Amino acid sequence: MSDQAEAQGLPDRTQNPAEGKAPEGEISKNAAKKAAKAAKLAAGKAEKANKGIGKSEAKMPTSKAPKKKIEGAALIGIDVSKEEDFPSWYQQVLTKGEMLDYYDVSGCFILKPASYFVWETIQNWFNDKIKKIGVRNCSFPLFVSEDVLQREKDHIEGFAAEVAWVTHAGNTPLEKKIAIRPTSETVMYPYYSKWIRSHRDLPLRLNQWNSVVRWEFKHPQPFLRTREFLWQEGHTAHLTEEGAAEEVLQILDHYAHVYEDLLAVPVVRGKKTEKEKFAGGYYTTTVEGYIPATGRGIQGGTSHCLGQNFSKMFNITVEDPAVRGDEKKPPLYVWQNSWGLSTRTIGVMVMIHSDNKGLVLPPRVAEVQVAIVPVGVTKATTEEERQALYKEIDELTAKLTAVGVRTESDLREGYSPGWKFNDLELRGVPLRLEFGPGESKGGFVTAARRDIPGKDGKSQIELKNLTTAIPELLDTIHNDLFRRADAQFREHRKQLTQWDDFVPLLNEKNVLLIPHCLTEECEDQIKDLSARKAEENSDVPQDARAPSMGAKSLCIPFDQPEGIEAGVTKCLNPHCERFAEKWCMFGRTSHPVPIRIKI
Amino acid sequence: MSDQAEAQGLPDRTQNPAEGKAPEGEISKNAAKKAAKAAKLAAGKAEKANKGIGKSEAKMPTSKAPKKKIEGAALIGIDVSKEEDFPSWYQQVLTKGEMLDYYDVSGCFILKPASYFVWETIQNWFNDKIKKIGVRNCSFPLFVSEDVLQREKDHIEGFAAEVAWVTHAGNTPLEKKIAIRPTSETVMYPYYSKWIRSHRDLPLRLNQWNSVVRWEFKHPQPFLRTREFLWQEGHTAHLTEEGAAEEVLQILDHYAHVYEDLLAVPVVRGKKTEKEKFAGGYYTTTVEGYIPATGRGIQGGTSHCLGQNFSKMFNITVEDPAVRGDEKKPPLYVWQNSWGLSTRTIGVMVMIHSDNKGLVLPPRVAEVQVAIVPVGVTKATTEEERQALYKEIDELTAKLTAVGVRTESDLREGYSPGWKFNDLELRGVPLRLEFGPGESKGGFVTAARRDIPGKDGKSQIELKNLTTAIPELLDTIHNDLFRRADAQFREHRKQLTQWDDFVPLLNEKNVLLIPHCLTEECEDQIKDLSARKAEENSDVPQDARAPSMGAKSLCIPFDQPEGIEAGVTKCLNPHCERFAEKWCMFGRTSHPVPIRIKI
Repeated sequence: MSDQAEAQGLPDRTQNPAEGKAPEGEISKNAAKKAAKAAKLAAGKAEKANKGIGKSEAKMPTSKAPKKKIEGAALIGIDVSKEEDFPSWYQQVLTKGEMLDYYDVSGCFILKPASYFVWETIQNWFNDKIKKIGVRNCSFPLFVSEDVLQREKDHIEGFAAEVAWVTHAGNTPLEKKIAIRPTSETVMYPYYSKWIRSHRDLPLRLNQWNSVVRWEFKHPQPFLRTREFLWQEGHTAHLTEEGAAEEVLQILDHYAHVYEDLLAVPVVRGKKTEKEKFAGGYYTTTVEGYIPATGRGIQGGTSHCLGQNFSKMFNITVEDPAVRGDEKKPPLYVWQNSWGLSTRTIGVMVMIHSDNKGLVLPPRVAEVQVAIVPVGVTKATTEEERQALYKEIDELTAKLTAVGVRTESDLREGYSPGWKFNDLELRGVPLRLEFGPGESKGGFVTAARRDIPGKDGKSQIELKNLTTAIPELLDTIHNDLFRRADAQFREHRKQLTQWDDFVPLLNEKNVLLIPHCLTEECEDQIKDLSARKAEENSDVPQDARAPSMGAKSLCIPFDQPEGIEAGVTKCLNPHCERFAEKWCMFGRTSHPVPIRIKI
Repeated sequence: MSDQAEAQGLPDRTQNPAEGKAPEGEISKNAAKKAAKAAKLAAGKAEKANKGIGKSEAKMPTSKAPKKKIEGAALIGIDVSKEEDFPSWYQQVLTKGEMLDYYDVSGCFILKPASYFVWETIQNWFNDKIKKIGVRNCSFPLFVSEDVLQREKDHIEGFAAEVAWVTHAGNTPLEKKIAIRPTSETVMYPYYSKWIRSHRDLPLRLNQWNSVVRWEFKHPQPFLRTREFLWQEGHTAHLTEEGAAEEVLQILDHYAHVYEDLLAVPVVRGKKTEKEKFAGGYYTTTVEGYIPATGRGIQGGTSHCLGQNFSKMFNITVEDPAVRGDEKKPPLYVWQNSWGLSTRTIGVMVMIHSDNKGLVLPPRVAEVQVAIVPVGVTKATTEEERQALYKEIDELTAKLTAVGVRTESDLREGYSPGWKFNDLELRGVPLRLEFGPGESKGGFVTAARRDIPGKDGKSQIELKNLTTAIPELLDTIHNDLFRRADAQFREHRKQLTQWDDFVPLLNEKNVLLIPHCLTEECEDQIKDLSARKAEENSDVPQDARAPSMGAKSLCIPFDQPEGIEAGVTKCLNPHCERFAEKWCMFGRTSHPVPIRIKI
């Protein structure tokens, strides 16, 4: 299959105003005029009728510094750069790429079809995996009563400040206020107590796909920190600790594969420290990602062993199966897990792969994987010739669709190929196929990869190989996206043995693997020691100048390097007297210049 | 294929205590003892730890009259009859059949895996259909601000009293209270105004699968009237009335097929009257079902044309595509539809097909379609023989699974075949296969249909035909379920031309097709005239004695009988002077003896 190898000497029909080149395929003046007119009209309409709705977007940007405009950026394109104004770039990529829109209730966002498709793909994949190990889907209510919510003290402390309360129905005050679930442990476990009557009922494995509400007062971030978010939450009960422990890792592995195999995002698997584990649980495992543009770590998904904490609170017991006859033994408290993966996945994917031309969608989660664009239609082309070309394109689309490639013919009238190329790039379509009289005659298509800009991403594919070459090329794109992101993560994962390197390397957008004692007290110290105040370093670039949180522990990676000798190796924190237990990964996690939206 | 034809002379291993027969397969004493002990234990646990949770069930029954116990009903079975105490029967079928559990927030219910599987099956089927006509799934927020919610006055009037309001986050009062969506018209349409910029953006067709909250103060009913419910809501925008109208009917047809082809439930397609149409809409189409046990009509799903009402409120316009050059024409308001189908589907299915032994699930939505139960294992059976039999059963299960039949080997230890038969019947498994030494030697399985009790539902199926005969038999079961329900509905759909027949036929559990003027005023009169007061008819049986709502119009069926002559045929209401416009279907809709749960 011919991808990069044959990419020499191909026509560059790509318009790339960001690089200041004269576009070969101009935006048709007619289309540009229409678009401008429509935009004005729409803005006017919104103004008149919807007082502020859909306008928060316009107010949102963002850093105190003025937006860094990309020179020559097209009307429809991204007009700030990922490198210079990451938050504005992220917002533009999402909104102009038609993944998301801002909503007039702060902290809530609209998932448009392109991003919901990613979520549906994750749902289908994950459902298939969990059903194989006997997990069944179900649906528990959105609401939870106050006394049930507060049954497990440590747990509710983790959520109490963020719980949304319903107090009225119509004009009628409710007798007791009712919470909207921030997560469903306390919603579900009273019923586990009722349903689990014997060890034969174990393991009980339930999962639900729903939304939960955590009314955070920090700056909201689309997909990453939102007041309502979509997720799945699995809740299972087991007879033994071993049974629970095995499942915790099975699920974590599925989460890792969602990132790696669907989203082309590398993650590090590990365990959370005591400080960072799930409130009320026994231990938490996690997959941790990394955003190169900000140098921040990000929690990707967590699989918790709850131990017997909740089963004791909610009295979930079975008779010991080892009991014979009338022998008396105390009942056994079940072992429980809970595990969740949210639409945060989508935000991480966008932050990692997308670029200054817009979205870059990994092929396996792209609603449209391939778009075929007619090229070479000029004033000299007869209507008959044009129709014949369009028919050929539709046939190619049908062929690819038949082998399971999600393909669209882009036959929109009134737009030049260059305008369409830009638009497809903005929306992240992984592969563009150009097809014109030259291609038709030569029996090939010209393929342009979204992930490799310009000529390097171009190749010719013979029509006779189309149905095998395109799926292979899509796999190659996936693998290349993963490989590049993985290389960046590895490059920025530094293993340290000197405290003096800690803060400088942190400031250079790294996450840091250090020998650590794993105590909470020491973690707090490290956080303090690595926090950056607003007034410091006033001569460094804008992004690094912003005040930053200190480093938090991200996880204790399962994959432990050599070098820690028990009772010999010291914890890296110079103020800590303890010995190191493990290599622990630290990093900054919150984003430096949050997108501001009206609260 | 041998199903009913060969059903003669087969052993009846079915335990059917409801008919007072001595069960051939006794509940093993051991299992019964264990079950009783476990039940007691669980009840005690719930009492201790969960103060009232999961106990509302026990309090719920129901009519003022004492429960009519089924003679000799087994411990695990349904102990009231569908005919004599429908509400208690419904509750028991759902809870003992493991479809649903009651929840400690009134009006909210837990959808257990068996019922959620039905919903997932509907989701997959419907998604496939709507994606073919270009509908895309998305996700809008749960919350809506007060001023947006109240934008369309008629619309909000329909929901205002039932809106749940969030006023606090943690201990912090919100600046403005926020509503939980009762439906998403007003959530979505401000963004339609923003997104629709040109006729090229039309049709815009979005759908979401979510839950909505309507805090009704009437008695809640599982699946039928719940304060939170799962549904899909489609919201589309079109350039022309014709485009919108075409889709309204396409969707209605899909709804009808969900009922008919998945749930084996017959429905009547029609249009709602002005009085019963969707608040704020232009017209509403509907599929209407019928519950034979209560004689009540039930709305199955609605597909609304909203006309231009909402587009005018939310200013959703496009430039007239007929405009040429600089010609001036006013912008066009788009035509909109919304359409929704909820988990009510599941309640209707259960009410129609299930019987006094428990659930009857139509095969296409049953999580387990076929259960294979070992039989003929006695004290004389060696461990080796038992293992060999179990191995054969697992092989049959694998064979059926391989051809897409959802099959389970029921190898639970400590339970007799009779106990398992009861349990499988309670849970509605459409087809039970019995397999013992006799079957093994003879090269066949003994099949027992859930929908036809006793010997008539039994047949032998040769093993060599298994993988074709079972799928065929499942289709036969589906078709027979539909046929029986359809016959009942037709029998109870009476066409009237004399008002004097109206109330008597209504009291005989019919829905009534009458010549009607279609005015609201007349509908109100008919409702009054047909309402039944508590004190009337005190000598009629308990069910008919209860006070009842008057008849409402259910729909104007698309399929209109002959016999209405414009300007000649009178409206059936004797107090109405108008001429009849159409045959209109009237019926009672609310349930006579609601399930009582603590509010």
